[in-house]
Order: sequence, then structure tokens, then C-alpha cells
Amino acid sequence: MAKLPQSLQNIALFFERLPGIGSKTANRLAMYLLRLPEQDLKSIGEQLSQLKSRTKMCKVCMNLTEDNMCHICNDTARDRSTITIVETVLDLLSFETGNIYKGVYHILHGKIDPLNSIGPDDIFIRNLELRIQNSEFEIKEIILATNPDMEGEATAMYIRNKLREIQKEKRLTFKVTRLGYGLPIGAHLEYADYGTLSKSIENRRDF
Amino acid sequence: MAKLPQSLQNIALFFERLPGIGSKTANRLAMYLLRLPEQDLKSIGEQLSQLKSRTKMCKVCMNLTEDNMCHICNDTARDRSTITIVETVLDLLSFETGNIYKGVYHILHGKIDPLNSIGPDDIFIRNLELRIQNSEFEIKEIILATNPDMEGEATAMYIRNKLREIQKEKRLTFKVTRLGYGLPIGAHLEYADYGTLSKSIENRRDF
Repeated sequence: MAKLPQSLQNIALFFERLPGIGSKTANRLAMYLLRLPEQDLKSIGEQLSQLKSRTKMCKVCMNLTEDNMCHICNDTARDRSTITIVETVLDLLSFETGNIYKGVYHILHGKIDPLNSIGPDDIFIRNLELRIQNSEFEIKEIILATNPDMEGEATAMYIRNKLREIQKEKRLTFKVTRLGYGLPIGAHLEYADYGTLSKSIENRRDF
Repeated sequence: MAKLPQSLQNIALFFERLPGIGSKTANRLAMYLLRLPEQDLKSIGEQLSQLKSRTKMCKVCMNLTEDNMCHICNDTARDRSTITIVETVLDLLSFETGNIYKGVYHILHGKIDPLNSIGPDDIFIRNLELRIQNSEFEIKEIILATNPDMEGEATAMYIRNKLREIQKEKRLTFKVTRLGYGLPIGAHLEYADYGTLSKSIENRRDF
């Protein structure tokens, strides 16, 4: 049997558990670590050990943070009247990288996915309802930014219905919007799928 | 600016330093770690910290090991009269996975690569010479298993010349061989490159 030294082998097995990394890549990565300065490995080793105990969820938006509130909810320059609902922290990062959005977020940490037995109570929808009902700030708009796939759509629809109930109950008048659909910038019509093309016709605009 | 909590960010940056991992994948991997049990992260963190101090080179073949000698050189069932010379430990692993080879190895940890200023003295060729000159066992064959690219060929040729000098000096008669070239199993002639096809004609055999 192929065998690396035990500690190297363990690290290769660790890499292999990560998504998208096979056993050959895992070995290559483990081997690569031997080239890094010992100090770097020590420091990253410590951080890995403490990762879970250090990382918490923001009590407002469920973003990941090391404090009680994340840097976005803490930032008074952000527009707290607009909340964008995303599935994961990675989706939030995509918006933040572009610097195109000045509001705040709510992270669901998942989507409604009956095939994998994930229901509305398994993601952070209830927290969103409470957040809206008890908000100190006036909420003007809620943007549903779940992914445009089947589960993402279902999640968006479920949340929209919940939001309507809250609006009736609490006599609130915020807008509920969904991200725009159509051709991505730089796309080629030739390679666009049927669903995207049909949305791009439906959502055509004056020009 | 997009921002993860500090410890998560540091781990993402660590992943990003690894070959073949971009910043999006690095973020995804770091995020995935939060799903692993804390105990696993602690244990892998410790192993990372100790990785470099624990991993040594086998004093015989330069394979990686936690002892003085690697498990292959220590294995008395292996045929010590045949030495296969490979560039890296990963190459050794490929041979070992197949369980197709019963001899021992010598790992160069690199190849002669003048464009990147790596000369014969920068890889473990001198150790190989000493190993052969001072061997307790009779050496019958040395298989040059460097990669079939330009640098691998140059390295193989350099070592072959060195071995011939040693043979003359010490009146030794071991065979020196190179791995067979030709079409890989499962290949399609249609997609084979010129060099491979030409080798496969040159190395054709009775059938």
C-alpha cells in the first residue's frame, strides 16, 4: 500500500475530506505544506484548532463573526432599511466584493430543500420574521436573493408569503423584491440556456 | 471590502496559498471547515503545527518518513538490488499504489532544470552516487523513472552518464534502464500526440 509518513498522511486525509479535492490532489497539497515556513504552519494550526470556538453568528443577520454583531450590522453607514436575504455567507461575500450594495443582509444558512429533508424550520427564516417584527428601524425593502434554482425559488416564495402575513398583521408597507433575471454580462446568446433566454425576453426593457 | 471573521479569513488565505486553489474556492473550503467536528480541527491543527519537525528524509532513499529509515527501505521483503529513481515522493506513491514494483527507490526531490536554476547539485544525485558506491547489497538494476519531459530526460541522461563513470571506476555491472514509452492504456490514437505516436512505433513489439 502507498504510504506517506503518518502526520503527512493525516493531513492528506484531511484535505481529501474537503469538497472537490481527490486523493491525488490531497497528497500534492500535503506535500506542498512541507515547503511553507514552520512558523506559518504553527500559526495556521493554532487557528484551525480555535476556529469553531471563535466563530459565532451575528445576532442580527446570522453572518459569521467573532463578536456579537458582524462588521456589516455594526457599520452605521449602511442602510438598515434595506435587507437582502441570501442563502450563504459566500453569497454575501459576492455582493460585498463588488461594493454594489449598501444595505444589510440576512443569511438563511441554507435553502428549503425537501429532497434533503431541509424544511423552513431548519434554516433561519423564523429569525428573519422576528427581526422584521421587532425592528427598531423602519424597513423599506426586502430583496430576496436566493439562488435562481428550484430550491432557491421555493425558498423565496415561502419567505414572500411569510412576509405578506407579517405586513398584514403589523400593517407594514415594505417592498418585497427578487433579483433581476436575464442574460449575464458577457454572455453569448448561442450558449444561453432556454430558461435564461425566456427570462431575458420577459424582462426586456426600453432602450 | 468583502470580509470574513479574522480566523476564517486567515484560513481562507492559507488555502489560497496552496497550488491550484483560487480565492473563491479558498473561501468555500474555509467555510466548509465550520461543519467539521471541533475535535477533528483541533487534531489536524496540532498535526499541522508539528508537521515539519516530525517529517524527515529517509537516510537511504530520501523518501519522507518520521524515522531514520522509511518503511520501504526497512522492509526486508523488498528487492534491494533494484533501485528506481524518481523525481518526487508523489511519483513513488504512484508506483506503490499499483503494487507493481518490489524493489526500492531513490528520490531526487526535483529535476535538473537550468531555466529555474536547478543544477545537478541541487537535487539528491550525489547521495545516489554515494549510495551505489557504498552499497552493502549487490545492485543489479537501476531504473530511471524521471518524467518523460525535457527536464526529466536531461536528468535521466545526466544520471546515466554518472552511473557509467561509477561502473568503470568500481567495476560494477548493474543494468541501467529507462521506463518504456508508448501509448498509455485506454488511449485513443486519434488524440495521441506526435511524440507519443513516434515512440509507440519505435517501441513496437512482436505480437
